[in-house]
Amino acid sequence: MTGKLFGVGVGPGDPELLTIKAANVLRLVSYIAYPVLEGSKSFSRSVVSSYLSLGVKEIRLIVPMTVARGPAQKAYDLSAKKISKILDKGENVACLCEGDPFFYGSFMYIFTRLSKYYEIEVIPGITSLTAGTSVAKLPLLARNEHLTVIPAPLEEKEIRNRILQADAIVIMKVGRHLKKIKSILDELGLSRFSTYIEHATLPSERVYKLIDAPSVAPYFSLIIVTKGADPWL
Amino acid sequence: MTGKLFGVGVGPGDPELLTIKAANVLRLVSYIAYPVLEGSKSFSRSVVSSYLSLGVKEIRLIVPMTVARGPAQKAYDLSAKKISKILDKGENVACLCEGDPFFYGSFMYIFTRLSKYYEIEVIPGITSLTAGTSVAKLPLLARNEHLTVIPAPLEEKEIRNRILQADAIVIMKVGRHLKKIKSILDELGLSRFSTYIEHATLPSERVYKLIDAPSVAPYFSLIIVTKGADPWL
Repeated sequence: MTGKLFGVGVGPGDPELLTIKAANVLRLVSYIAYPVLEGSKSFSRSVVSSYLSLGVKEIRLIVPMTVARGPAQKAYDLSAKKISKILDKGENVACLCEGDPFFYGSFMYIFTRLSKYYEIEVIPGITSLTAGTSVAKLPLLARNEHLTVIPAPLEEKEIRNRILQADAIVIMKVGRHLKKIKSILDELGLSRFSTYIEHATLPSERVYKLIDAPSVAPYFSLIIVTKGADPWL
Repeated sequence: MTGKLFGVGVGPGDPELLTIKAANVLRLVSYIAYPVLEGSKSFSRSVVSSYLSLGVKEIRLIVPMTVARGPAQKAYDLSAKKISKILDKGENVACLCEGDPFFYGSFMYIFTRLSKYYEIEVIPGITSLTAGTSVAKLPLLARNEHLTVIPAPLEEKEIRNRILQADAIVIMKVGRHLKKIKSILDELGLSRFSTYIEHATLPSERVYKLIDAPSVAPYFSLIIVTKGADPWL
């Protein structure tokens, strides 16, 4: 009998935003696995530290600091192998994932490599999207409104077109693309409907109207554009 | 001193998918409020029943069974008044909301009416979107992919155009629009990339390839289209 793999969404950062299901799984498994950027600490590991059982064993999955796909894919091949060795011994493993496993989550890369061979359960997590609207107090979608989620690294022209066609817009992974996004929203007259949020639900959380946003954004930042919906909905 | 209002996302249906924060708030407040369709039971109330303290008082917010905005807005005016009376006594109130409060959530209608006058904290919830991808085991978004969320009641032409322009698509509130959506996805050659999910995470959950989906869908159903992303991401 091989073990079971859990893909556990740990949410945006506040440890209280774990689901009860995620906390229960973390207490029961004998192994946790989590991605770590070369030379840094694991964010998802820090979020769940208070939920781990004392004897839990840890598998660090080293991810290279690069946007090139080749090295990242090799790293995930190796990560999947590390995890499969433990599953083959009949032990259960909980693989931690920031936010939600299938919403830009790193767990996808493990899932696609192991789903044919092992039993896998995916536990959804609070996304930075809903964390962002909650802390900024921005009703996002009502009735038949339509949402577009756009990663900031996309090309300027594509981002502009997608924004033009949407009711509500969430721009993810803002980071070093902040200047580009600001200029697009300015040009479209949407800056006053835009909110900038970084590190939602963490102690370092900051929320600004886009026009007051700082000039440097961390990777964990997003911009929400609501186009000024009827306040009474 | 007036009381504090909490907008509590209760998630998609599995009580274990409440966040720890939501469960803590529910144990501490003296009042809960929740929407009920005229003549039926409250779904969100049933999800949280095991987390409520024994002495908690309950405020039922009656919502009319109609798509017309006027009667719904009047009902929310009345609901907001009921809640404000309790807050004015200095008591805290947790208002329950299916899924996430600001992601097509009913709490928005209360929030917009009371946010100027009371302290409000919004607790994000697991959306049916991430619950759906989890139970159907569908990696949704990787790297720089773009997502479109479309409510099924929109017009056929608009839905078709939005689907054509998206990488990944989630169609919400399928219900009586199932036939229309099926025909659009067929026409676009996307049926084989489409998954139908109803009542995700509830005992009545059902997951089908769209081509095998039943002909009648409940309101709580969605269709996920992934356009066949690279399985190794």
